[in-house]
Amino acid sequence: MRVIIFGADGYLGWPTSMKFAADCHEVIAVDNYLRRQMAKQTDSEPLIENQKLDKRSEAFNALSGKKITVEVGDCSDYKFVKRLFKEYQPDAVVHYAEQPSAPYSMIGHKEASLTLRNNLDSTLNIIFGVIEESPDCHIIKLGTMGEYGTPNIDIEEGWIEIEHNGRKDKFLYPRQTGSLYHTTKIMDTDLLWFYVRTYGLKVTDLMQGPVYGLSTIESDSQDNLLPNFHYDDIFGTALNRFLVQAVAGLPLTVYGKGGQTRGYINIKDTMECVNLSMLNPPKSPDLRIFNQFTETFSVNELADKIKNVGNQLGLDVKIKNYSNPRKEAEDHYYNPKHTGLLEFGLKPNLLTNEVLNDMLEKVIKYKSNIVSDRILPRIKWNK
Amino acid sequence: MRVIIFGADGYLGWPTSMKFAADCHEVIAVDNYLRRQMAKQTDSEPLIENQKLDKRSEAFNALSGKKITVEVGDCSDYKFVKRLFKEYQPDAVVHYAEQPSAPYSMIGHKEASLTLRNNLDSTLNIIFGVIEESPDCHIIKLGTMGEYGTPNIDIEEGWIEIEHNGRKDKFLYPRQTGSLYHTTKIMDTDLLWFYVRTYGLKVTDLMQGPVYGLSTIESDSQDNLLPNFHYDDIFGTALNRFLVQAVAGLPLTVYGKGGQTRGYINIKDTMECVNLSMLNPPKSPDLRIFNQFTETFSVNELADKIKNVGNQLGLDVKIKNYSNPRKEAEDHYYNPKHTGLLEFGLKPNLLTNEVLNDMLEKVIKYKSNIVSDRILPRIKWNK
Repeated sequence: MRVIIFGADGYLGWPTSMKFAADCHEVIAVDNYLRRQMAKQTDSEPLIENQKLDKRSEAFNALSGKKITVEVGDCSDYKFVKRLFKEYQPDAVVHYAEQPSAPYSMIGHKEASLTLRNNLDSTLNIIFGVIEESPDCHIIKLGTMGEYGTPNIDIEEGWIEIEHNGRKDKFLYPRQTGSLYHTTKIMDTDLLWFYVRTYGLKVTDLMQGPVYGLSTIESDSQDNLLPNFHYDDIFGTALNRFLVQAVAGLPLTVYGKGGQTRGYINIKDTMECVNLSMLNPPKSPDLRIFNQFTETFSVNELADKIKNVGNQLGLDVKIKNYSNPRKEAEDHYYNPKHTGLLEFGLKPNLLTNEVLNDMLEKVIKYKSNIVSDRILPRIKWNK
Repeated sequence: MRVIIFGADGYLGWPTSMKFAADCHEVIAVDNYLRRQMAKQTDSEPLIENQKLDKRSEAFNALSGKKITVEVGDCSDYKFVKRLFKEYQPDAVVHYAEQPSAPYSMIGHKEASLTLRNNLDSTLNIIFGVIEESPDCHIIKLGTMGEYGTPNIDIEEGWIEIEHNGRKDKFLYPRQTGSLYHTTKIMDTDLLWFYVRTYGLKVTDLMQGPVYGLSTIESDSQDNLLPNFHYDDIFGTALNRFLVQAVAGLPLTVYGKGGQTRGYINIKDTMECVNLSMLNPPKSPDLRIFNQFTETFSVNELADKIKNVGNQLGLDVKIKNYSNPRKEAEDHYYNPKHTGLLEFGLKPNLLTNEVLNDMLEKVIKYKSNIVSDRILPRIKWNK
């Protein structure tokens, strides 16, 4: 297949590009390095330096004998996006090209506006690229489990049948998020669903939980092929923060009560979910939605796991509650379904002690790169 | 009260500005004339020429002894919006500043992109104007009944309690629309709801059905104070189109089967609903949602009403079915609630024969202005 990866410089974009190229697909890797600029501006650079796409693809191409084609450009510029669709006529596109940080989107008006424009413009442009240049192209879009928030009812996979006053209809599952960034992902879903209904597009929306891991088949061969590892308060995840705090001898900072529960997924499984989605496109026009995670943990459970594994490695890991910079429920019901991708054949790689141990060892290797000023929250939801 | 009307040059913006000034509120009328430019570009100008805000407000101020202050500028420019909030410290704002045409939003990428950016940027800017400069200001936002679409269950006022697998929660009523324009209104709702939850804003979202009428107390005094009357396929409503077709001796074009049912409201009642919302702001942070219409009709019923009144005026009115340029259900369940505004004291002005007769007489007066090329659909939902 020929596939364009939009947002190929990101944590998932680069390993996806390598995996698909390794699987003998024709891969076009696209990015404008927006996240790099934002990370630099906010002093939030990753633990391990990642080369830009031209260098990384050169290294990968040399090592593998496969080929990733790189296109540097801005997905919020329609001329650029239209040219890519026209030139490459992709069978599928993977859309990761969004400003991905909740805290960044909460800094102020400028950052909220950038997030809103960048994320919606890139989604609209990809939709129109398909409509105008490549109508059979399958759009694989990364959504987020965060779109659902933490409702007091079971979370279904994208859709819900509602019975009301004796009548029934099927709707998009109600969405209500915890940040402006997550709100733009709800809007993406509305945008995709409108154009699916109107122009008969084929879309898979992957509602993904927080992803962890640095190991994929392709990135294991050389450290300069590793995915980005952000541990800062803006682009990092709680799990990465805990790993770095454990290695740096800092207490793991659990925000609030720590009962915040989310669905987690190993990066290997993300690769496989995107792959399974691409290999099994919708047969007819559809907004197909999968919940993309394999197991759920509260923040407290996550901290405990890392504490245990860290202590076995000889680290002296402590846990400390910390005033929550976000507005979110800290103790809530959470029961999300996730059967769609398992039915396609996903074999989960779970968050074992071994996985955490390997990640800790990688962080230990780069311990001298840790900048501890980047770890505690610099952005609060309430002004 | 001091109130800013964003989008004051529009069909509702201008009469609202006059009404509030007549009621001795301090009114700041804001517009950048975007709709005028789009109407000119698409050959869709209104039946009766409307002067720009400076001239109209001069005429109104002279006639009434009241004062409307005019500010010309773009609500998608945050510097401008922030300055207005800082300078005027409004008690309330009415947000009409959106690209309002469904067909315009469906022309192509450029128009979809303009609609998306303009409508979301203006809403985000007004939200941040309030957060940063005037945190107690009440935002009155015009939504649309079109956000709900035509579900097979009763439409509640903004919210719905869902019982699912033995548990319950309350959600925004599910929204699913028929155009990109309407989709941006769903996104507005998501944006407002997020910032209401996060920063404690006070917002009233008025989910309005199609509005009709040219008569308000203030606009009745001089024809140069009349609201805009669009009868074209882009900015006009079905009701206005039928009135003009009746007067021009053209058949009333019912799209498809004509079973499309919507909730309608007289412009006098819109003025009163916005007024009641402003005079009764939420007492605590809230996204308060009202369904703003007074009666429902199918397109067939609307055409029949206008045919009857037209024939009584000596016109020879015919009705003709016409291939539907839109993608929409032409025969559907429709049972929307609308009790919130009645409870505040709204006394509906219904779509009587007298109202239609008065509108037809106004169109007859300006019959020579009719450009019949503007009436039939120039934009189709399917390419």
